[in-house]
Amino acid sequence: MTDSKKPLILITNDDGVNALGISKLIESIAPLGKVVVVAPDSPRSGMSSAISCINPIRVSLLKNEDDLKIYSCTGTPVDCVKIGIDRLLDRKPDLLVSGINHGSNAAVAVIYSGTVGAALEGCIIGVPSLAVSLTDHSPRADFSEAARIGKSVAEKVLQNGLPKGICLNLNVPNIPKVKGLKVSSQTPGYWTKEFEEMKDPSGRGVYWLTGEFFNQDPDNVNNDEWALANGYAALVPLQIDMTAHDFMGKMKVWEE
Amino acid sequence: MTDSKKPLILITNDDGVNALGISKLIESIAPLGKVVVVAPDSPRSGMSSAISCINPIRVSLLKNEDDLKIYSCTGTPVDCVKIGIDRLLDRKPDLLVSGINHGSNAAVAVIYSGTVGAALEGCIIGVPSLAVSLTDHSPRADFSEAARIGKSVAEKVLQNGLPKGICLNLNVPNIPKVKGLKVSSQTPGYWTKEFEEMKDPSGRGVYWLTGEFFNQDPDNVNNDEWALANGYAALVPLQIDMTAHDFMGKMKVWEE
Repeated sequence: MTDSKKPLILITNDDGVNALGISKLIESIAPLGKVVVVAPDSPRSGMSSAISCINPIRVSLLKNEDDLKIYSCTGTPVDCVKIGIDRLLDRKPDLLVSGINHGSNAAVAVIYSGTVGAALEGCIIGVPSLAVSLTDHSPRADFSEAARIGKSVAEKVLQNGLPKGICLNLNVPNIPKVKGLKVSSQTPGYWTKEFEEMKDPSGRGVYWLTGEFFNQDPDNVNNDEWALANGYAALVPLQIDMTAHDFMGKMKVWEE
Repeated sequence: MTDSKKPLILITNDDGVNALGISKLIESIAPLGKVVVVAPDSPRSGMSSAISCINPIRVSLLKNEDDLKIYSCTGTPVDCVKIGIDRLLDRKPDLLVSGINHGSNAAVAVIYSGTVGAALEGCIIGVPSLAVSLTDHSPRADFSEAARIGKSVAEKVLQNGLPKGICLNLNVPNIPKVKGLKVSSQTPGYWTKEFEEMKDPSGRGVYWLTGEFFNQDPDNVNNDEWALANGYAALVPLQIDMTAHDFMGKMKVWEE
């Protein structure tokens, strides 16, 4: 295979370029093509699809090999995708993989996740995109199953592509042997008890985000939380068109 | 009407508590009920649904009247909604209105918008929620039409409620007399030429976000960009379930 025929793969994350999860992802994805990493220079968890509107961003080249280039970026995960595709890559990539996130991005977490935000951004730009997360927040988590399944899904995306406007959200449970892969839907739910109130060293009150997830549909075997709780990796296709098309007709009476 | 029967309305934005747009929104919404404002202490444009995962946030009470309380918050728009509902309000609000944003949040901008992020958050928590934006970025924009139409839609939401998992995204064109309100879908598209390369005072390169929107479906009269370009306010119902349900069946072959 000549170099120019190798798939070009953009990798990013939200835990930062030095996280263990992205290094394990690079290892597993590298055999599939030429890899360019553009990742935040430090953690950007919970950044959703945030973009740097006010301040400029900076990019540093950390590794420059033929088949593996690594850049760090001072921006958000979405900034990394935008600048990678707009400025750093010589052509549009064949695949974007974001992760492996330290922690679950299942259920409604897709709305807050920087890992998923990066995949949505690839999708907006027209690149087949996949977010990969492991349900373990620890910095030294065991990413072997997540890397194995992530690579397998990435290969399928390279072979089959994805429909316009759809990207994938893969969550892998933190267990030694995952039972299999289940195509799932986004579990509905929300967080409760969201803040802890504390005092700073000056005695002023601060609020620190925490919270417990409340699953609104726990028995639905089609949901990603069900798959994860039952030993499966959950693969949810996400669409960037957020229009509630079914409700549009009923809203016609709102027109003036 | 006794005080306890007045609707409780949470107002936020992403341009910050001192922006003209939120002051015009407060003016127009105040007659509809008891208003509590929880807004960022400075601009948070492009923050999407970002949450403060790493650092604590602080809240200051700026105004404390019976029917109008105003808090500023050091967090993101979504943090403002979370802390407002979890800690500052004595009950779940009957309505959340976010805005009025200085600048359009039509089309794919819903993905990046802090104004829309706040409305999505209200929706996740189960509060009928509405984002309002004016297609004019200037700090001294004329918000009169946006305030008038925003109030009218807010009244309809108070009367009719919204289905679970659906919130509203209202964009108002920057013209003296808007023709009417059109229920619309999110226009597909993306941004091109996204960065300007500049030098900082030390001669180091920086990238500054800019870009031109490319509309992938410009002739579709159902899209919000079409409505805005033709003198209508565009009202898009957005759903927080991002699952591409129609594609799930076709993905079954991906299971392992």
